[in-house]
Amino acid sequence: MLRLVPLVAGWVLPVGPTAAQLNQVRAWPLGYGGLLPWRAATGSAGGGWRPVLKTPKGTRDHPPAHTALRDRLLAAVVTCFKRHGAAAIDTPVLELRETLMGKYGEDAKLIYELQDQGGELLALRYDLTVPFARYLAMNKITNMKRYHIAKVYRRDNPATTRGRYREFYHCGMWFAEPKYLSCARSLCCFFCPQDFDIAGQFDPMIPDAECLKIVHEILSDLQLGDFLIKVNDRRILNGIFAVCGIPESKFITTCCTVDKLDKVPWEEVRSEMVEEKGLSPEAADHIGEYVQLHGGLELIERLLQDPKLSQNKLAKEGLGDMKLLFEYLTLFGITGKISFDLSLARGLDYYTGVIFEAVLLQQENERVEEPMSVGSVAGGGRYDGLVGMFDPKGRKVPCVGVSIGIERIFSILEQRMKASGEKVRTTETQVLVATPHKHLLAARLKLISELWGAGIKAEMLYKKDPKLLKQLQYCEDTGIPLAAIVGEQELTDGVVKLRDVATRVEVDIPREKLVDEIRRRLEP
Amino acid sequence: MLRLVPLVAGWVLPVGPTAAQLNQVRAWPLGYGGLLPWRAATGSAGGGWRPVLKTPKGTRDHPPAHTALRDRLLAAVVTCFKRHGAAAIDTPVLELRETLMGKYGEDAKLIYELQDQGGELLALRYDLTVPFARYLAMNKITNMKRYHIAKVYRRDNPATTRGRYREFYHCGMWFAEPKYLSCARSLCCFFCPQDFDIAGQFDPMIPDAECLKIVHEILSDLQLGDFLIKVNDRRILNGIFAVCGIPESKFITTCCTVDKLDKVPWEEVRSEMVEEKGLSPEAADHIGEYVQLHGGLELIERLLQDPKLSQNKLAKEGLGDMKLLFEYLTLFGITGKISFDLSLARGLDYYTGVIFEAVLLQQENERVEEPMSVGSVAGGGRYDGLVGMFDPKGRKVPCVGVSIGIERIFSILEQRMKASGEKVRTTETQVLVATPHKHLLAARLKLISELWGAGIKAEMLYKKDPKLLKQLQYCEDTGIPLAAIVGEQELTDGVVKLRDVATRVEVDIPREKLVDEIRRRLEP
Repeated sequence: MLRLVPLVAGWVLPVGPTAAQLNQVRAWPLGYGGLLPWRAATGSAGGGWRPVLKTPKGTRDHPPAHTALRDRLLAAVVTCFKRHGAAAIDTPVLELRETLMGKYGEDAKLIYELQDQGGELLALRYDLTVPFARYLAMNKITNMKRYHIAKVYRRDNPATTRGRYREFYHCGMWFAEPKYLSCARSLCCFFCPQDFDIAGQFDPMIPDAECLKIVHEILSDLQLGDFLIKVNDRRILNGIFAVCGIPESKFITTCCTVDKLDKVPWEEVRSEMVEEKGLSPEAADHIGEYVQLHGGLELIERLLQDPKLSQNKLAKEGLGDMKLLFEYLTLFGITGKISFDLSLARGLDYYTGVIFEAVLLQQENERVEEPMSVGSVAGGGRYDGLVGMFDPKGRKVPCVGVSIGIERIFSILEQRMKASGEKVRTTETQVLVATPHKHLLAARLKLISELWGAGIKAEMLYKKDPKLLKQLQYCEDTGIPLAAIVGEQELTDGVVKLRDVATRVEVDIPREKLVDEIRRRLEP
Repeated sequence: MLRLVPLVAGWVLPVGPTAAQLNQVRAWPLGYGGLLPWRAATGSAGGGWRPVLKTPKGTRDHPPAHTALRDRLLAAVVTCFKRHGAAAIDTPVLELRETLMGKYGEDAKLIYELQDQGGELLALRYDLTVPFARYLAMNKITNMKRYHIAKVYRRDNPATTRGRYREFYHCGMWFAEPKYLSCARSLCCFFCPQDFDIAGQFDPMIPDAECLKIVHEILSDLQLGDFLIKVNDRRILNGIFAVCGIPESKFITTCCTVDKLDKVPWEEVRSEMVEEKGLSPEAADHIGEYVQLHGGLELIERLLQDPKLSQNKLAKEGLGDMKLLFEYLTLFGITGKISFDLSLARGLDYYTGVIFEAVLLQQENERVEEPMSVGSVAGGGRYDGLVGMFDPKGRKVPCVGVSIGIERIFSILEQRMKASGEKVRTTETQVLVATPHKHLLAARLKLISELWGAGIKAEMLYKKDPKLLKQLQYCEDTGIPLAAIVGEQELTDGVVKLRDVATRVEVDIPREKLVDEIRRRLEP
């Protein structure tokens, strides 16, 4: 079952003809391609202002069914972040341009800049990491575990079918992490996270292990299917490059090329190294021997004995910490889904230690109409240098963090629900207050007010004299489980007829016991 | 007690010396004035890039204590919106410039525009209403109850001490409402709402009454002190202007002037009418006789008998509906806090019927260090024409909605907490996993993993061998109620020492019963 854990009992509507009628009231437009921009025939000719009915390219509206699904997704992620003791922060969508400039390398051209309308020069945030680093430096915070869920903006070429938008949610929990920095590849592979970070000087690998545990918990909770978390360390990669004779100035660009190994075969990566990046064929081959390796503890042990790598200080440090990390992950009981993968590079300037990325594994028997590749759904790593870039004295704050690719996970769930015909309830209404005949609006208003006062989620139709059938149909269409019906007879008898919408069984309940009875019926 | 209803048991920390130490780890900067922009001494001289440590003017970061408080505030509002059966939608922060242009009158100059970087011309949304109207028209939706919580952007002159920012939350539930439109006054009086709207053709005043009920519920739930909801109807105002001989072209501008009556005495309003707006002194006096009236049902009845007003079709309609509204509000039992106030105008172009605004009433015995005027904290009204502006065929969708002024309410709560020294817990951690001596990191990792697996919110210090005192101090500082301590003895005995942080009582619990015992202890 590839289904979100229901966070609110009964939020998944049964599939059936009644659910289909839902579309009338609450639309479920899964794409927004159905409505083409509408314009007056001539551009600026004198016909007066005519509306253009569209959202900006690369953005979309989220109708109730989307929003309900995404809210549940976000809630599941936040629940995990809170379980790990993170506090939430929020920073403005707008940053000074100079805060963002010089942080994203060649991707800086994707930053949305605001028009100079007098005053400060501003831009829309590109990720949550640089604002977090600015926040830590500005407030001289050296120690923090925080999560942040917010939208970020990139003038990327949208590929909306694969969950790539220009506006998307970032959310995660980290310790000040510089993701998505200078390499276009990294932008493509992973770009819509929630962030969790831990900043501070701690004993090695303890917060790093927790970040991996968080990814494991979230992907397990969401029941997205089988997944694998690839782990590597920038120090190991840099050590490999060094022992293969690559000059330090080419480490980053070589990283970017290595990072393509999950998409293209080694031969292509090799030829890019030699032909585009100017590495010698021998050096490329040498790198190839290392970066095609993946495994677990035994691979770490083997590399620790490697005659060349064991002589390199960086690689030795990285491998030692990787061993420690695997020990902690063993205690957490999650090594089954962890792969030490030397091809993982995440091509970003600022990673300084452990890096990781989670991918969903394709399932043969998956019943999805249009299977799609969504790339990685979570990732992160250690970035100990970014905060120092903002500190006047360059004081460093070691950070490690994880981002969850909400937009991509959402795209997967969206596709699956579309394929299965499953609907999400968009409201949480528990009771519809109804009347069986005319002239009873006052009775409905009085009863619904009592229910609201008791905290019951209740609706009524905004008609003076709605037909009973219409009222009951509304319950079926929107998934309301109960109807509280008051007619003349019920008013005289001091009761309310409580109807179970699914079974159609009706029972008279004394008015003073109605709230308790509703609560009892709705208990999980 | 002016305190938020605790949404999570125990989220308010006790006041005391231990709570003060919290500041070390998690800052509580109530303003952001403490950190001046930091710059290299010379502007563009060749010293290389130096960081400017500030957020854009009119925006601020929200540290954990802010975010926790605001999340709870938002949760309380959303709970109410959901209780009334609203679905959530989300729209992009960016809109096409032409979607926004022509909707905000002279306030259009406050719209943040994006630089022309090729492609579409974009702007940041100014409110949630115009995007909602665009959404309804674009998706041809004629019937919807929705809420929306999101930030909006205005290049206003920030008055941050009174809760006025350039970035702030809008959230409400409405039926497509054009607030904040053409009159600067309205921008000042109320500008940071959450939105709830009901769109659709319904029987008169039923959704309108629900909007007022929602405002009443939210302000009661938040325990902000005494409040009053002023209600009026644009048709009544227009009727008054008509019978006073004002030409229709001056209705809106006269509205703007009338709307100042809650801030300045009638004499000033009168002289603005005569000297600036060009009304005759007689007409102004005549208007003055009406707009200084306020009351309840008896005033409505009196005006329905008014020889002039009763002859005006618009006024008669408005008064008839106002009477109906009061009937419904009586059934809801909330007329005690409702005032039919003829001076309420909300000076916006697009209101077409009922308008309302909630204000907090100053309390004599309020123990606030710096009492502040925050203006209205909620408002809204009926706007039946806005959606039609976006529809190619001009089809109208009647709408009514309410906005809650989150930023202003937040400012009040912030001031009150500052004055009382009360702290908000920024995390929800239930248990700290601790060890009493060295070499027990593995035991902590194993135990915390078990607790996370059982859904318990647990933390541990990221040190290999932390001192027990430091671990217990961390519990006190951050409000963690329980510590689960494992030492060699406990491991041998198969127990965990569960410590109640407040009472310091420790009990050995068999390991297999630990999760149940923690749950039992934390039951509300």
